[in-house]
Amino acid sequence: MHLLDETARPEWIDYNGHLYDGYYGVVFARAIDAFIERIGLTAAVREATRHTVYTLETHTRFLREVRLGAPLAVACQVLEADGKRVRVFLTMRDTGRDILAATSEQLLMSIDQGGEMPKAAPWLPESGAVVAALAAKHAHLPAPEGAGRSIAIRR
Amino acid sequence: MHLLDETARPEWIDYNGHLYDGYYGVVFARAIDAFIERIGLTAAVREATRHTVYTLETHTRFLREVRLGAPLAVACQVLEADGKRVRVFLTMRDTGRDILAATSEQLLMSIDQGGEMPKAAPWLPESGAVVAALAAKHAHLPAPEGAGRSIAIRR
Repeated sequence: MHLLDETARPEWIDYNGHLYDGYYGVVFARAIDAFIERIGLTAAVREATRHTVYTLETHTRFLREVRLGAPLAVACQVLEADGKRVRVFLTMRDTGRDILAATSEQLLMSIDQGGEMPKAAPWLPESGAVVAALAAKHAHLPAPEGAGRSIAIRR
Repeated sequence: MHLLDETARPEWIDYNGHLYDGYYGVVFARAIDAFIERIGLTAAVREATRHTVYTLETHTRFLREVRLGAPLAVACQVLEADGKRVRVFLTMRDTGRDILAATSEQLLMSIDQGGEMPKAAPWLPESGAVVAALAAKHAHLPAPEGAGRSIAIRR
């Protein structure tokens, strides 16, 4: 599922002459913003219901360098979900060179900000239905290469 | 090992009223820049030798919200290293509230940019000696909670 189109901006390029790894995270986070809108949590709904989504964990792999001005497309596969969480696998492609530049596995949590402290809460019904439908639809896709892995020096 | 002091800047705060998850990655990446200097790969050395470091993977856990203006301190424990790689575990503390705000496990690779394409290369001798000394010194520390883990919905 396509989520975001971006361009590698001048202020994101580092001393190595490529997209600074910290800014891959910003691009992926903006794709998650698009995902959150896609499941019905638009700014208006977030404001009215005080429900939102927090990112709990991310695992990002930097596979290829991204140069200034590169056109980037981020897509999403839902790996699993439950009543208040969803685990997704994002891919960032450099569509100019048709290469996979990076992947990011992310765990997201439904949050109710209406109380004294933000707390984990079940999905709003509309969002939960979309998340469950995406999980069911994507359950038939092959597991992405690299999903579910930890980081190690492999010898 | 302390690496970086930062402050949660206004341009890093999102619609949830806290540090946007993408910018935790920028803070951690700046801490890695400090680590790279610490192992002798200063801008002058990088320029003269064409050796640098690329981040291959990151696994970040967002444990607590960080508010505008919060003072942040990033520290590093070396988990393992070999002749061209090092795996580190970074902690980001909000020193104003004395809480652990986030952790980031990262795998870094020594890179030679002198050829036609950047390629993995053994550490420069001086850097390799510092990396090995840190790994030996930190080998006696307990494994940080959350290191070496993959992401999943745990039921």
